[in-house]
Amino acid sequence: MPVPAIDPVAAGVLTEVLDGRWAHIRREARLRMAALPSPATHDLSTEQHREQVLAELHELAKSGYPRIGFPTSHGGGGDVGGSLTSFEMLGFGDLSLMVKAGVQWGLFGGAVEALGTGRHLDRYLPEIIDLGLPGCFAMTETGHGSDVQHVRTTATYDPDSREFVVNTPDVSARKDYIGNAARDGRIAVVFAQLDAGGAERGVHALLVPLRDDEGKPLPGITIEDCGRKAGLNGVDNGRVWFDQVRVPREALLNRYGDVAEDGTYSSPIESDSRRFFTMLGTLIRGRISVAGAAGSATKSALTIAVRYALDRRQFRAPDGGGEVLLLDYLAHQRKLLPALATTYALHFAQAELVATLHDGDIDERGQRELESRAAGIKAAATWHATRAIQTCREACGGAGYLAENRLPQLKADTDVFTTFEGDNTVLYQLVAKGLLTGYQQDLHELGSVGMARFIADQFVGTVIERTAARSLIERLVSAVTRDEDADLLDRGWHLRLFEDREKHVLDTLARRLRRAGEPGESAFEVFNAAQDHVLRAARVHVERIVLEAFVAAIDRCADPGAAALLGRVCDLHVLSSVESDLDWFLGHGRISTSRAKAVTGAVNDLCRDLRPHAGILVEAFAIPDAVIAAPIALGAERDRQDPRRERHQAGLPRKEDSDSATAS
Amino acid sequence: MPVPAIDPVAAGVLTEVLDGRWAHIRREARLRMAALPSPATHDLSTEQHREQVLAELHELAKSGYPRIGFPTSHGGGGDVGGSLTSFEMLGFGDLSLMVKAGVQWGLFGGAVEALGTGRHLDRYLPEIIDLGLPGCFAMTETGHGSDVQHVRTTATYDPDSREFVVNTPDVSARKDYIGNAARDGRIAVVFAQLDAGGAERGVHALLVPLRDDEGKPLPGITIEDCGRKAGLNGVDNGRVWFDQVRVPREALLNRYGDVAEDGTYSSPIESDSRRFFTMLGTLIRGRISVAGAAGSATKSALTIAVRYALDRRQFRAPDGGGEVLLLDYLAHQRKLLPALATTYALHFAQAELVATLHDGDIDERGQRELESRAAGIKAAATWHATRAIQTCREACGGAGYLAENRLPQLKADTDVFTTFEGDNTVLYQLVAKGLLTGYQQDLHELGSVGMARFIADQFVGTVIERTAARSLIERLVSAVTRDEDADLLDRGWHLRLFEDREKHVLDTLARRLRRAGEPGESAFEVFNAAQDHVLRAARVHVERIVLEAFVAAIDRCADPGAAALLGRVCDLHVLSSVESDLDWFLGHGRISTSRAKAVTGAVNDLCRDLRPHAGILVEAFAIPDAVIAAPIALGAERDRQDPRRERHQAGLPRKEDSDSATAS
Repeated sequence: MPVPAIDPVAAGVLTEVLDGRWAHIRREARLRMAALPSPATHDLSTEQHREQVLAELHELAKSGYPRIGFPTSHGGGGDVGGSLTSFEMLGFGDLSLMVKAGVQWGLFGGAVEALGTGRHLDRYLPEIIDLGLPGCFAMTETGHGSDVQHVRTTATYDPDSREFVVNTPDVSARKDYIGNAARDGRIAVVFAQLDAGGAERGVHALLVPLRDDEGKPLPGITIEDCGRKAGLNGVDNGRVWFDQVRVPREALLNRYGDVAEDGTYSSPIESDSRRFFTMLGTLIRGRISVAGAAGSATKSALTIAVRYALDRRQFRAPDGGGEVLLLDYLAHQRKLLPALATTYALHFAQAELVATLHDGDIDERGQRELESRAAGIKAAATWHATRAIQTCREACGGAGYLAENRLPQLKADTDVFTTFEGDNTVLYQLVAKGLLTGYQQDLHELGSVGMARFIADQFVGTVIERTAARSLIERLVSAVTRDEDADLLDRGWHLRLFEDREKHVLDTLARRLRRAGEPGESAFEVFNAAQDHVLRAARVHVERIVLEAFVAAIDRCADPGAAALLGRVCDLHVLSSVESDLDWFLGHGRISTSRAKAVTGAVNDLCRDLRPHAGILVEAFAIPDAVIAAPIALGAERDRQDPRRERHQAGLPRKEDSDSATAS
Repeated sequence: MPVPAIDPVAAGVLTEVLDGRWAHIRREARLRMAALPSPATHDLSTEQHREQVLAELHELAKSGYPRIGFPTSHGGGGDVGGSLTSFEMLGFGDLSLMVKAGVQWGLFGGAVEALGTGRHLDRYLPEIIDLGLPGCFAMTETGHGSDVQHVRTTATYDPDSREFVVNTPDVSARKDYIGNAARDGRIAVVFAQLDAGGAERGVHALLVPLRDDEGKPLPGITIEDCGRKAGLNGVDNGRVWFDQVRVPREALLNRYGDVAEDGTYSSPIESDSRRFFTMLGTLIRGRISVAGAAGSATKSALTIAVRYALDRRQFRAPDGGGEVLLLDYLAHQRKLLPALATTYALHFAQAELVATLHDGDIDERGQRELESRAAGIKAAATWHATRAIQTCREACGGAGYLAENRLPQLKADTDVFTTFEGDNTVLYQLVAKGLLTGYQQDLHELGSVGMARFIADQFVGTVIERTAARSLIERLVSAVTRDEDADLLDRGWHLRLFEDREKHVLDTLARRLRRAGEPGESAFEVFNAAQDHVLRAARVHVERIVLEAFVAAIDRCADPGAAALLGRVCDLHVLSSVESDLDWFLGHGRISTSRAKAVTGAVNDLCRDLRPHAGILVEAFAIPDAVIAAPIALGAERDRQDPRRERHQAGLPRKEDSDSATAS
């Protein structure tokens, strides 16, 4: 496979490409970060950590950044993309701060903004924005997380007192894992089954005060601390019980459903189910933020591991010439470089998602498609983070196990990302459902049987809808004539391969699921037996849109050197992704056995070709050293003060650098 | 695929099968464990945790268990298998205790026993056994971990004073990550480059005192605390510098190399390199212990996750009938059940390894083969632990992220297992090297070029050597006539498939590596380009010997019901393993595309068939509830005292069980 060598590119040029549309937000965030406490918080007790994070949160409030995402009508900046980018940058620091900020301004503030009406915005938004009113987002219960539609907290309207009575019927209905609840939250947006006018109205959200000004739980409120967690210990997660707690009628966030004084219920959306999913649609920002933060944490881990691999040597080469740098081993390249390439791919997919949400102006179907894409990218980005950070830890051996080198905390803090803000397995099922039904309006109201009938009646075969650089991709794809002859680095072939896989997986899935609508079939059994197929459909769809975003970003890149390097990074991303799904491509006759071997060879070649650029590729993330913090990534290991320095200073011989560092 | 339903088996019957030869050790350990502090140590500070673990270590010393592995000549029990089983059982508790015990009695005590002579055993073993002398195993340096042969600490013999001078030349040569060093260790076995009689003699081990009776570092010794780690914070890891520290000539552990008073060096093993690897062979017990502890931790995690999945429900079935148990979802079964099956497989492979080591009586070649097998199983078991515990955490969602449910600590504590006691990537390379050269005597002395020539001259094709139940396996394998027609559950076909894969991967690897010996080739480049192939060779070899051990264990099983259930578990282990390597089997024409699809279908079917037995399969590990400790695994979530209980006790209505727990 003859490929031209890649010319060196300055990290700054790549940084500009990565920074993209909200570059100013990223630059300012980098400056701000240096002033924050070290993100290495392993020596803090839980209480100290929480205190530090709360103090940082107040600093952040003062900086003005949290307001930029809120509407201009209420003192905000109206810059949704800037706000999401700002959250993504927080992901380079202590992730507890990112999550605590996400709870206050994203989930809590976002719910008030999205589900409330003028009276709530006027009264609460200013205090939410300046952190005068720390709040919680109380949705999840011990017994119901993913299935929010069936939470069991109740809010019953009492027309006599014109109040809602909020109640926790039993222990499995307590609100659980609620951020900000154990210590700092004064009020919560509580999701509960609304009962008004003598009928159940489905899940609605109300503002329920939790603590008085001294921080003591109010009457009827019981709060328990969730205690120590794997990570994110700067966030005070708690459990909340409501014991017949009364709140005024106006506490209902009534944008999508209101209760009149006499208990009459009204809503602009007739269907209970559609109303519910419209309300859940407001979660989209949270999911995008988690995906962004997962990306940032992955970049930190890769920066640490790649720098270490460019510094640490082990074993002498058999041909002589001194000890070999870790990153010169193929096995080490294979651990880090494909992960790095996919991190680039996800970065561009994320940026495109943020821009699409920011630009708005989409119809209802487009909105659902966007929610689905956010769910899919959240799942892909957080699973990638879990795997990549784990790999980085292992690639740094014992040094990677020390807290001072930050990999343990990066791993532990991000670990919950795969299951919070939507469990990834559940999110992928949502994505597949959206694909199968073309994001039809009434989809959410369909049960599985209805969905199976819908597929039987309306699904005529998958139509691939491109999300980025449509005409370019169209052109590249149609330029490929014979797949088997295409060069392995032919982008058109890559795109076609992913597109064709998605189409096939979806078409065959639709065929299987149709059976669920047939008489005599158990819809549960049919759907359950196909669950691995469903998850695959979502995954391959996400892989296709991520690739398209990467291709579009390279196309936009003005610097030819940077474009060439990114092109090679994209090659590695695609081919290592193909390699990990080779069983499918082989099993479905998409790739011949000889071509499959060539794919593995090409991944090895690309690792070798990109090896000289690995340093630049991580430096391009431009994470300030103060935030990287890990001694192994800062050359501190060698420069570290030798405890026996006095001896050396007394004139005795000193070998500052080890043999291993100076050899070859 | 018509398979007979599996009859239920009592957990106790399975426990007996699992407990095997050292059942008494396991039973006693279970009783002892209930008396230990809870393994959930997340609320302890580093100092409190270290203190607790040291106290437990003294209790353990008093129990007499640590002595059972030492020679009877010095107060030990001479029961190597019992000792290793006892370490494995410690893996169910706080893993810090297991590691601290491993440092004291396995590494430190084991090195004195294996590398020392009468004078060391007489003087030190009693104090080592009763923990009167806490010690360290100071091998790894900051700059050299896997490549122990090139550590840079020096021990220079001074014939005038009849002392060795131990010295750390620079910061990269400090001893690093040394367990027991930061706080408790009084003495260390130090690995250093021996210089005696004016010549370099390679790496040898010496006993060097570190601290005085008050615990203060001795003159010339500098100790630094490694600080907080991802996990295992009850172990005090430290860094040690030696500044021209003098120890008497007798401090040399002189079994494999001695220095006379005048500085004359002598050794029963002529070759420096062979001597070194003979000395390293003593590490075998440490690796086996780590693999065992990894298995125990995996069993704890699976017990927690499976119990939770049998208790927690989410989403209603489309056909009505209430909420669905997590473990009734195919996706959830696929997360947990193949991992459980492989845990069983590794358990039996581990037991066989322990028995082989215990029985001894093998020649030098057999010894090397055993060391290689221990290295391979250590890598396989610890990577499996890392993946499986991660999966268990995710399968428990938010509850799995809480420290009280132990999964975070299990993950963090075991994380270093993949890179300590031999980095897994390096260990797999050792395994492949052993296979390629048939464990020839002088292998270790060969450089890569020599090894390539050796392969060219002597390698005539892989010979599969069975490690367990040879005649049974022979019979099963030869009963298979046409691979493509074999039933997917045919054990002979499984064995043949794994055997054939190993043979092919090794033969093709040998062909590639031969080139390294040809003139004009860079041996490093040739070996490096094949590194992924090398790692695959080791992996498929280990998978074959693990399968053979599982087959042999089922064959030994006297209870037909248990054998039938274990047979199905073995089917799932094999087919999910085949599924994860389908690209290889397809790409090498070993499995047709239609058969590949059938494999995936069979894995789904096996998950469904084993689902009713999942509870029994984890209960068979018989981990005491006091050690499981996680509230989500003890039904404590529902029974937990409701903070509002007074209200309920006052006669107000109480719904003790949630709808979700009572539905269907």
